[in-house]
Amino acid sequence: MNVRIGIAGLGRLGRVHAQNLLSSVPDCSLIAACSVIEEELQFARDILRITYTFSNYEDMIRSDLIDAVFIITPSGFHCEHINLAFKYGKHVFCEKPIGLDVHEIKQTQQIIQSNQELVFMLGFMRRYDESYRYAKSIVDRGEIGDITLLRCYGIDPTSGLESFIAFAKHNFSGGLFIDMAIHDIDLVRWFTGHEISQVWAIGKNSLYPELDALRELETGAVMMQLDNNTIALIVAGRNAAHGYHIETEIIGTKGMIRVAQTPDKNLVTIMNAHGVIRPCSQHFSERFRDAFIEEAREFIRCIQEKRSPQVTAQDGLQATVIALACQESYEGNHLVQIDYI
Amino acid sequence: MNVRIGIAGLGRLGRVHAQNLLSSVPDCSLIAACSVIEEELQFARDILRITYTFSNYEDMIRSDLIDAVFIITPSGFHCEHINLAFKYGKHVFCEKPIGLDVHEIKQTQQIIQSNQELVFMLGFMRRYDESYRYAKSIVDRGEIGDITLLRCYGIDPTSGLESFIAFAKHNFSGGLFIDMAIHDIDLVRWFTGHEISQVWAIGKNSLYPELDALRELETGAVMMQLDNNTIALIVAGRNAAHGYHIETEIIGTKGMIRVAQTPDKNLVTIMNAHGVIRPCSQHFSERFRDAFIEEAREFIRCIQEKRSPQVTAQDGLQATVIALACQESYEGNHLVQIDYI
Amino acid sequence: MNVRIGIAGLGRLGRVHAQNLLSSVPDCSLIAACSVIEEELQFARDILRITYTFSNYEDMIRSDLIDAVFIITPSGFHCEHINLAFKYGKHVFCEKPIGLDVHEIKQTQQIIQSNQELVFMLGFMRRYDESYRYAKSIVDRGEIGDITLLRCYGIDPTSGLESFIAFAKHNFSGGLFIDMAIHDIDLVRWFTGHEISQVWAIGKNSLYPELDALRELETGAVMMQLDNNTIALIVAGRNAAHGYHIETEIIGTKGMIRVAQTPDKNLVTIMNAHGVIRPCSQHFSERFRDAFIEEAREFIRCIQEKRSPQVTAQDGLQATVIALACQESYEGNHLVQIDYI
Amino acid sequence: MNVRIGIAGLGRLGRVHAQNLLSSVPDCSLIAACSVIEEELQFARDILRITYTFSNYEDMIRSDLIDAVFIITPSGFHCEHINLAFKYGKHVFCEKPIGLDVHEIKQTQQIIQSNQELVFMLGFMRRYDESYRYAKSIVDRGEIGDITLLRCYGIDPTSGLESFIAFAKHNFSGGLFIDMAIHDIDLVRWFTGHEISQVWAIGKNSLYPELDALRELETGAVMMQLDNNTIALIVAGRNAAHGYHIETEIIGTKGMIRVAQTPDKNLVTIMNAHGVIRPCSQHFSERFRDAFIEEAREFIRCIQEKRSPQVTAQDGLQATVIALACQESYEGNHLVQIDYI
Repeated sequence: MNVRIGIAGLGRLGRVHAQNLLSSVPDCSLIAACSVIEEELQFARDILRITYTFSNYEDMIRSDLIDAVFIITPSGFHCEHINLAFKYGKHVFCEKPIGLDVHEIKQTQQIIQSNQELVFMLGFMRRYDESYRYAKSIVDRGEIGDITLLRCYGIDPTSGLESFIAFAKHNFSGGLFIDMAIHDIDLVRWFTGHEISQVWAIGKNSLYPELDALRELETGAVMMQLDNNTIALIVAGRNAAHGYHIETEIIGTKGMIRVAQTPDKNLVTIMNAHGVIRPCSQHFSERFRDAFIEEAREFIRCIQEKRSPQVTAQDGLQATVIALACQESYEGNHLVQIDYI
Repeated sequence: MNVRIGIAGLGRLGRVHAQNLLSSVPDCSLIAACSVIEEELQFARDILRITYTFSNYEDMIRSDLIDAVFIITPSGFHCEHINLAFKYGKHVFCEKPIGLDVHEIKQTQQIIQSNQELVFMLGFMRRYDESYRYAKSIVDRGEIGDITLLRCYGIDPTSGLESFIAFAKHNFSGGLFIDMAIHDIDLVRWFTGHEISQVWAIGKNSLYPELDALRELETGAVMMQLDNNTIALIVAGRNAAHGYHIETEIIGTKGMIRVAQTPDKNLVTIMNAHGVIRPCSQHFSERFRDAFIEEAREFIRCIQEKRSPQVTAQDGLQATVIALACQESYEGNHLVQIDYI
Repeated sequence: MNVRIGIAGLGRLGRVHAQNLLSSVPDCSLIAACSVIEEELQFARDILRITYTFSNYEDMIRSDLIDAVFIITPSGFHCEHINLAFKYGKHVFCEKPIGLDVHEIKQTQQIIQSNQELVFMLGFMRRYDESYRYAKSIVDRGEIGDITLLRCYGIDPTSGLESFIAFAKHNFSGGLFIDMAIHDIDLVRWFTGHEISQVWAIGKNSLYPELDALRELETGAVMMQLDNNTIALIVAGRNAAHGYHIETEIIGTKGMIRVAQTPDKNLVTIMNAHGVIRPCSQHFSERFRDAFIEEAREFIRCIQEKRSPQVTAQDGLQATVIALACQESYEGNHLVQIDYI
Repeated sequence: MNVRIGIAGLGRLGRVHAQNLLSSVPDCSLIAACSVIEEELQFARDILRITYTFSNYEDMIRSDLIDAVFIITPSGFHCEHINLAFKYGKHVFCEKPIGLDVHEIKQTQQIIQSNQELVFMLGFMRRYDESYRYAKSIVDRGEIGDITLLRCYGIDPTSGLESFIAFAKHNFSGGLFIDMAIHDIDLVRWFTGHEISQVWAIGKNSLYPELDALRELETGAVMMQLDNNTIALIVAGRNAAHGYHIETEIIGTKGMIRVAQTPDKNLVTIMNAHGVIRPCSQHFSERFRDAFIEEAREFIRCIQEKRSPQVTAQDGLQATVIALACQESYEGNHLVQIDYI
């Protein structure tokens, strides 16, 4: 069975998904695209050679042309776009976060749960990265014993800092934790299988102190206590001089694992007057190139095999709840207990 | 334009190519397969769902069903299969080596050269590996200065040694240098742009001394002098306890580069009672997974854009000439001058 | 001038100091030793060939035989032994911590300050480790910009865990933070030049849950907010399967530094069926062998050149105050503000 | 027993030895120095505070002031200075090489052998380096099986190249192999316990082609066949942009070992705009600081315990014979069989 796909949103990340669907995901056809930006539609037609383009999401989603949708729209629209897709009986792949408002997410979660025949998948692509899967399998086989501590770094390269500052002067990203740390929050829950009870988040603005007033951060950190006393440390930032630094450490009673201890770009080592050098990944699309492909392949397989992906709406909800608690903790500079109902 | 492809040979490497063509190479269709082994054809039909299967190469190659062929047959048939493909006007992708007999290769080379409208590409896939390309671009930009020395390791994992020994008792692989070192010989020529003048090859059989009489080697080494005095050291072997060790070093007057100094499997580091551990690649299909995809994509693009791949029949010829000289040097234990006419 | 030294305490660490003084520190003579354990005195006479041995500290310290003392006695005696040394006009090298009681430390600090002609040095040996000094010089030259975050790991090898458990059943170590994290607390203050304002400490006992009731921890973590908003993360533990894991990271606005990202034992890499392996340091006396020598040499030079070491009694006081705050935070599971008066 | 030492030669390496003897080697006193360079004697008196200085070697060696001598004079004088020391009954530590002329070395070897009551030790300090010893112990325990191949790199940093060129215009160093590769030749013999049968040496002068005529090399390589077919590859050079690159690899049937795969200066990793960087050792005195101390300590212990060091005059002789064969092979560009009689 060939799955016919429409994509909503063709910004930077949307284009990554679109190109993967066209070149590296078997058994599907990307035949429709929608965007409110005319230039993106032009890109869809001219470069990607996508047949059907729409400037209105509902026009695309209600058509019979497609079986499934990739939602890569701004986070604030995710819930609405998921709801519509379910209304018209389409399978949904949605980029993280599932939403920005907890109440709205819960409503969407209910819609998802009452349509089990449709596949819903959330884009926590790290779970499909080869190195993370390898680490997870080591943990699951018990080779490092009981997990006592996780450390997750997610630091964007300095090259993007200026444009973030320009953006932040006029927009609120939701804060560092929902904007950046949400992948790491998901990793903590995925690796441990436990929930987070309590958080303390702090941060420092050094180059751009004006960010303080905007509730934004160059560098932030959270310490988390899980419901079984496991410790989690998250560092999120927007200013890694060397590149796109995504590193995860899992400490267990029998051993430790590090995923991407350094953000190696490839297998090349250079020795010159600066020393022994490993070049670094510079972008999420470089580091997670294969993970984006794998998650899209898994989405198609789930549709074909009528099964559910491992990432659920609940995972999206919990990660958002925790990220919001981190922001609250940072703004108030106090411990925040996570209230699960 | 969609390129219709037939594949000849569906052994271990043939299946890698077939699966890549089906899942990761746009603008082509793998629609035909041929093999003298019925089980391989069954695999083609049942698992790969390839429509047309042939037990005779010429039947496939002369049909109008296909535009191009992937030749993954035993090395001794390569020239014959290339010749036939050109006779029937098909583009050719051929696995290394181009052949085992210098005279026969030269004839095939002439056929290739007199059919410039057809694309011919040889499977030196390392040239399409991301890390090798990155290294090559550093060299080409002059960042390490003039190349003075190359060191190339190509060592198969111990896991395959027993089956090689069983094979070697009844077959001659052509010797370690043509069987294993040919990729490294190509790298030496590719990185330097120079030809090899003189070689001395030696080797040691330690676990299986009976290999001496069979002209085979567990571990061998060649020192090469290039026409501009550049030095090349090649180590080939069949017994790396840790995995598939393919490492290349380029020493220049301004710096050194190492490609895959250690054969890291992924980005995971494990710390346990054994120490700090990096797991290793175990197989060529793991290490060069993306390189095989890239070379196939390049082959299709060359057909579409009517241009020639960078790997030529001449590259295949030279690598074979040099590998044979290494074997001669090893067997006679003396220096061998390479005779280019 | 040759400095005549007496050493108080010849346990594991005392012997390290004694042997260094005898073999690797010029311009001094270790001529006296004192201990309440007869076996230690025997070791001093028979193995170290130290001339004068004492079973009473005051007997040694008031004698005219020595110019200076190395105090390696149990932490609870440090202040008393320092006070006596100053009373009798001896230079003092004292192991960390300076003491366990803040009030007592402050009294000792006053005695030290009113005897400026005598050298007092505290054993924060990491400050004399070559790698830490190299990192510090990079930071001080501004090469990584303004420090935003520090991460300090201090994890003892699993090999010592059983004996700690046996010890903990009958003694209180003071808790994980004063026992283990005090070196890391000093590093945070040393690298940043700032004071710690607020801490939250948590921990997990997984193998030995009975430690909960004993106020001890297998693994603990502290997040610290400094007075300029710099973030510090400290992980302390007693259960590193791979060895003695002391790692320090300094993140700045222009770059990051890691000291001992992995606890490499030496320059050897092994490749075998387990993968690519770096063996690990197993003990503080292995990892900091040269640092212990360097600090002793510096102590002698300070006496000779009549100058003060960079590690002051104030450094010892502050580190203790903060470690106690961490323990309080852990026990109460709440944020603790550090109260400096 | 305290060993009274005189040192002959206080150049760069002589000063390393002198300072070690003064600060880090117990049970000895460096009390005499001799040099034909007045400035060196002044350094001995003023900086090292050595009591007795001599401008004539024989004056020092025949005096009753000393029990042993450190010979750090130019290589061409080593044999003569050893002979004299033995004549006057002094223990001898001599820097490598033992000499430059095979006949002369053999005569000295006889003198050494007929004075077994005197300790003779040759300065192959790598054998006393912690990492090399660790590697040797792994090999000796059989953990990597039978050795099939060794690879030894010895490349001086670029920083010294200019001064070598200036030197080479007026002096002959003996050639790259005796000047640089002799340590690596010793390592090959030490690790394998076998002798070298045949060598081919080549080289390339790229920055300074005028070196061709001077029989000198910027970069050279030797391939060696040992008497049990073990393979050895040696790369020697004078132009490593990143630092002092001394690397040794031992490949066995069960595993591989690398000593100093990269010439890490310390345990610091830096991440900045250049990538992930490990700083490098820049000089032999930095890389082998502890090895020089260890060999001196071993020399003193051998005198005290009346036993022989593991490095013998025979080791010195063989290494010289092989280095000369390498130079001959390079100059004639042919295989050279080593003739042992």
